[in-house]
Amino acid sequence: MLQKQNDPDLVRDLNYVWHPCTQMKDYETVPPLLIERAEGIYLYDKEGRRYMDVISSWWVNLLGHNHPRLNAAIKAQLEKMAHVLFAGVTHGPAVRLAESLVRLSPPGLTKVFFSDNGSTSVEVAVKLSLQYWAQTGQGRRRKFVYLKDAYHGETLGALSLCGIDLFREKFQDVLMDNLEVEGPDCYRCPYGLKRESCNAECFEAMEKAVERNSADIAGAIVEPLVQGAAGMKMYSPVYLRKLEDLCRSYGIHLILDEVAVAFGRTGSLFVCGELGLNPTFLCLSKGITSGYLPLAATLVEEKIYRAFYDEYSTRKMFLHSHSYTANPLACACANETLSLLLENDFLAGLGPKVRALGEQGRKLEELPRCGEFRQTGMIGAAELVEDKGTKKPFAFERRVGHQIYQEGLRRGVFMRPLGNVIYFIPPLTISADEIETMIGAARDSIRAVLQK
Amino acid sequence: MLQKQNDPDLVRDLNYVWHPCTQMKDYETVPPLLIERAEGIYLYDKEGRRYMDVISSWWVNLLGHNHPRLNAAIKAQLEKMAHVLFAGVTHGPAVRLAESLVRLSPPGLTKVFFSDNGSTSVEVAVKLSLQYWAQTGQGRRRKFVYLKDAYHGETLGALSLCGIDLFREKFQDVLMDNLEVEGPDCYRCPYGLKRESCNAECFEAMEKAVERNSADIAGAIVEPLVQGAAGMKMYSPVYLRKLEDLCRSYGIHLILDEVAVAFGRTGSLFVCGELGLNPTFLCLSKGITSGYLPLAATLVEEKIYRAFYDEYSTRKMFLHSHSYTANPLACACANETLSLLLENDFLAGLGPKVRALGEQGRKLEELPRCGEFRQTGMIGAAELVEDKGTKKPFAFERRVGHQIYQEGLRRGVFMRPLGNVIYFIPPLTISADEIETMIGAARDSIRAVLQK
Repeated sequence: MLQKQNDPDLVRDLNYVWHPCTQMKDYETVPPLLIERAEGIYLYDKEGRRYMDVISSWWVNLLGHNHPRLNAAIKAQLEKMAHVLFAGVTHGPAVRLAESLVRLSPPGLTKVFFSDNGSTSVEVAVKLSLQYWAQTGQGRRRKFVYLKDAYHGETLGALSLCGIDLFREKFQDVLMDNLEVEGPDCYRCPYGLKRESCNAECFEAMEKAVERNSADIAGAIVEPLVQGAAGMKMYSPVYLRKLEDLCRSYGIHLILDEVAVAFGRTGSLFVCGELGLNPTFLCLSKGITSGYLPLAATLVEEKIYRAFYDEYSTRKMFLHSHSYTANPLACACANETLSLLLENDFLAGLGPKVRALGEQGRKLEELPRCGEFRQTGMIGAAELVEDKGTKKPFAFERRVGHQIYQEGLRRGVFMRPLGNVIYFIPPLTISADEIETMIGAARDSIRAVLQK
Repeated sequence: MLQKQNDPDLVRDLNYVWHPCTQMKDYETVPPLLIERAEGIYLYDKEGRRYMDVISSWWVNLLGHNHPRLNAAIKAQLEKMAHVLFAGVTHGPAVRLAESLVRLSPPGLTKVFFSDNGSTSVEVAVKLSLQYWAQTGQGRRRKFVYLKDAYHGETLGALSLCGIDLFREKFQDVLMDNLEVEGPDCYRCPYGLKRESCNAECFEAMEKAVERNSADIAGAIVEPLVQGAAGMKMYSPVYLRKLEDLCRSYGIHLILDEVAVAFGRTGSLFVCGELGLNPTFLCLSKGITSGYLPLAATLVEEKIYRAFYDEYSTRKMFLHSHSYTANPLACACANETLSLLLENDFLAGLGPKVRALGEQGRKLEELPRCGEFRQTGMIGAAELVEDKGTKKPFAFERRVGHQIYQEGLRRGVFMRPLGNVIYFIPPLTISADEIETMIGAARDSIRAVLQK
């Protein structure tokens, strides 16, 4: 192995820590990396070995680790106040962040409700939607439409919107009764079309589901353009335009979960802004602090806010809170993140990197088991298959992705896979040269596993 | 009003921010305090006016604001790494914290699962419990027993364990089907007993509920000793001992939600440790970082961990994650918090303050509308009633607590109430003199509202 397995911290880790989203027995063969520090796009272990953070520490880091300006923003806020409750109290960092988010997002979104993570940003949208309908005489509307392979978080409310069996199967019997709809599946398009040129013909499943259940539906939720946990499945913006029209024509809420894709990942600040979409709710988290601190925001249309605004005695207020709502340290970091993203044409400057990712990434398709390399802005993904002709997936048990991950570690890249999908969602500060190195290491790692 | 209402930050707040757990219309008459900095037990607004943080910013702050050692711990960690993902990776601050929590908590708890807030710490316990039963051939066990007036968070899974109508009424139809049980109600004890000397006779409701439904029950959850959101309702440890026995005899899980009471609030580090209780799950958050940053931990018995530990192909792993799980900045702050709590007999040193809180607090009972002053360690609460003889509560609409809160602001104390309960849960670093000032201001504020 790469690290000293008898390092006392590693021993203590295995003794005391239960890691998220992991079969703990896996650590018997691949111990966790004991990371001591991080700098730019690299993580450093205790012995000074470095690993490129190809997946931005679960898609959160936008501007690199140990960024001098983000560090300075946190330190400056720390001198004033780390935290104060957010009921009956407000503070500059939250006010400034709320104003920026409202100004930078689609015009219909006017209010910001803060929480702590992607799951809670979705729970807040779901609860606001339910309470809105209850308070406007349509309490029958209690179901949310979500897509097959969707992922919107793992608290039980958010998990009720999850279309991935592996995440929900153990909890199926206690989840909310929502509506799962067959969504886009562009690599294996049943219509034989291409996402670049189709008219989102697959939208008919959504159309029928909403039509059939319209009186019971509160809202529809999607991850715009990229279904992350599904394996970075990418689909046409036409689908989103059709969904917006459908929601409008049936008067149901549109919840856009941009937790993974916002803040420059796709090349623009918000996908909804770029595409001119007008959601009822916009869920944000992850990159909002550039991977420094937990923070989330749910942006809301004014008509929702107004349905809760009344005398106290009407009991119409939204009772939802987390102790650290709008944590000032996290808000200060988010404000500086936004400044950095908006300065010096930062987002426009991503162009050459996006092209480099595409050029390098497409070379992976030359590999005999790479079925598709797909890309949306600074997100790239290579789907590995047993047979490129039939697109037959590798069996779950074979754990092809996990083997390639281990090969990657030997080559200094940290690219934790999603099943058999190897994906690239590096800090936006990565250079074109580093993109070439990253994809090269991925190619070598894939070869090492699949051509032996 | 106290502040300039045309302060641009206040105007922007009302334009863009939706505050938690608040009827936003209330801010028309009582604008939010615009807090700029905080120091020790005080919050300072933009004009330099100070407010004693009587409720520790929602019960999170243990050691005062702007603590030099907590600030230093965060800065030191910031120089190394703000964050890294926690799947396939570990780091010193999390390992050290997990080890400390396991060593300092009851011996049966061996593993730590990190998350972001109290709600998620409960969701993790609930999901682990459900999956445990599913994986050990008892998938029928899907119900959790919770107490009337219980509060365990507001994500929909956690809200399914809430016994307060105001929080759950709008979402009733989508919540999990759990079992609500009449719990202790010591101020209005239906048995006519006193919490100091009773034998928790009220436990019979729990006993019957579990007996009647035992085959369907996964676990029971309680807030030990103090039901916080209920209005700091306090009850006898005998109840907890009986509950532990009952859970053991029926083989169901005991979930202790110490989110509000742990880390010295009651005088000891953990209530379960102090009382010699052995829960299956222990939920922690709030004070874990002394009110600096969002962080939570769910401690777990080894038998639970073992039921998930197997080959990957068995799909027995616990799939739950938040991007910022075990955030290194928050873990570093938590480690320093524990050091401060354990150094120099800090907890033992609380004795004189606990006595001062009791002596001063009991004087409130002399007020004609104060039905009871109750206390558990450094938590005190005064329940105001319309009639002390009949213990008749003030009507919800009268908002007695909210009026007293406004009077408190004029007197420089921030004591946001729970309905008609004025409560005191100040930073543990408050002095005996400051306790006297705090209770004095509360007394004057109560008088100003109830004797005019």
